Amino acid sequence: MDDIIRQQAINDHIQKDAFADYLGAKVKIIEPGHSRVSLVINNKMTNFHGTTHGGIIFAISDMAFAAACNSHGKIAVALNVSVCFLKPSFPGDHLVAEAKEEHKGRRTALYSIKIFNENTGELIAKSQDQAYRKDDWFVEK
Amino acid sequence: MDDIIRQQAINDHIQKDAFADYLGAKVKIIEPGHSRVSLVINNKMTNFHGTTHGGIIFAISDMAFAAACNSHGKIAVALNVSVCFLKPSFPGDHLVAEAKEEHKGRRTALYSIKIFNENTGELIAKSQDQAYRKDDWFVEK
Amino acid sequence: MDDIIRQQAINDHIQKDAFADYLGAKVKIIEPGHSRVSLVINNKMTNFHGTTHGGIIFAISDMAFAAACNSHGKIAVALNVSVCFLKPSFPGDHLVAEAKEEHKGRRTALYSIKIFNENTGELIAKSQDQAYRKDDWFVEK
Amino acid sequence: MDDIIRQQAINDHIQKDAFADYLGAKVKIIEPGHSRVSLVINNKMTNFHGTTHGGIIFAISDMAFAAACNSHGKIAVALNVSVCFLKPSFPGDHLVAEAKEEHKGRRTALYSIKIFNENTGELIAKSQDQAYRKDDWFVEK
Repeated sequence: MDDIIRQQAINDHIQKDAFADYLGAKVKIIEPGHSRVSLVINNKMTNFHGTTHGGIIFAISDMAFAAACNSHGKIAVALNVSVCFLKPSFPGDHLVAEAKEEHKGRRTALYSIKIFNENTGELIAKSQDQAYRKDDWFVEK
Repeated sequence: MDDIIRQQAINDHIQKDAFADYLGAKVKIIEPGHSRVSLVINNKMTNFHGTTHGGIIFAISDMAFAAACNSHGKIAVALNVSVCFLKPSFPGDHLVAEAKEEHKGRRTALYSIKIFNENTGELIAKSQDQAYRKDDWFVEK
Repeated sequence: MDDIIRQQAINDHIQKDAFADYLGAKVKIIEPGHSRVSLVINNKMTNFHGTTHGGIIFAISDMAFAAACNSHGKIAVALNVSVCFLKPSFPGDHLVAEAKEEHKGRRTALYSIKIFNENTGELIAKSQDQAYRKDDWFVEK
Repeated sequence: MDDIIRQQAINDHIQKDAFADYLGAKVKIIEPGHSRVSLVINNKMTNFHGTTHGGIIFAISDMAFAAACNSHGKIAVALNVSVCFLKPSFPGDHLVAEAKEEHKGRRTALYSIKIFNENTGELIAKSQDQAYRKDDWFVEK
């Protein structure tokens, strides 16, 4: 399979994230192993403290992780995620999660994800995510 | 403040979780430090593999954590969360996250959260969550 | 292989932990998936704050984890560990790490480890550990 | 206090790590928030699989973390550590743990630690560590 067509097929698959669509998050593969997810926070995305819900911060981090670890065309699933929360954010804030591959082995791979508040320039959370790489490919190998 | 009225005030506050409402998750404090969150998965809550989105599993776990760590009336916020994913689940599955307090110190507290698929009886994820306890109370001390 | 002889062979293997011997830690399999490690802290096991070194607390937790996840006779290795530190401890304190299996799948398994200070009765740390289970067995299957 | 004398006082304090001395690990502050720890693995530092003990890998990572988070002169203690293990290593291997500050807030700070095998050039483990910053200083503020 031609490499550009293959990358397109991988991207088409990764764009089929129903929860990303539901939230309005935009997922982008920068290059294999490197992705970025963008979301503007609204009032429905808050917790009882009135700040951005941890579930939202995790969700965009997880979407960046999923895009990065599946960006090679091999099926990868989350094994574990450790996320540290550093700063609150609020409705109106534009959050960006960026995932980078730190290691890619035969069976597992590791990613660092930084979540920034574009409005303030602050790092608001950081995550370390490990994926399990299955034997199967969702595009031609 | 009367203890029953105080517990009611705490619960009223914890029910103001806009993202829980948006997803349709039900949050319940069983007793101080112990909570349960329930959600039926629909098609909008899936990832590009067609399974329940990690962001959804994390969200209900986080709601249980937030309810448990704030159930004493003192403001608590997430420091860090480590979640391990064990089994996939699917639209139609009824998921329940249960949080239990493992430790409560002056500054930090620790919770174990188990996420079960009620349809299959399986433990599908487990999380270890640490909270920072502020000096402030959201109900009368 | 006779089951008692098999359990003995598994235990013999698990006792070959050179670092446990070096520190003087005692490792015990309670039953498959459940283990306990015991160590009395001395002055060499401290950090520059004068409290028990995080590396020591982790080490006995890791020994309990390794004993528990290998207690079925199948080779298991650590994928990831998340540990929360709750209380300081000191030279003279008797620490006990207890590991319990939360999940055992074909490829991965999950353990909770609690580290107690027997002198004070306090929970001083808690760990959530995930293992990768290889196809190979170190005793006859 | 003169800045060079102050940095020397900080370094003097950080070098009083009894467990680092016991293992023969060398701890170095590169600059505030950035440190490196070096250790050559010997036979006493192995587990029952014959590879470097998880407790040793964690220990040097923890020493780098402790040096980095205390390098500002303010007392910092570990809140939580999440470590992913990527590759085995063996007696004779020279391991280096390098800690870098990702965030420094009033109450908490976050560090990434990479553990490399200098003999092979491989990243063998990666850790994400969060510290609690006390109000007290161990050198003059």
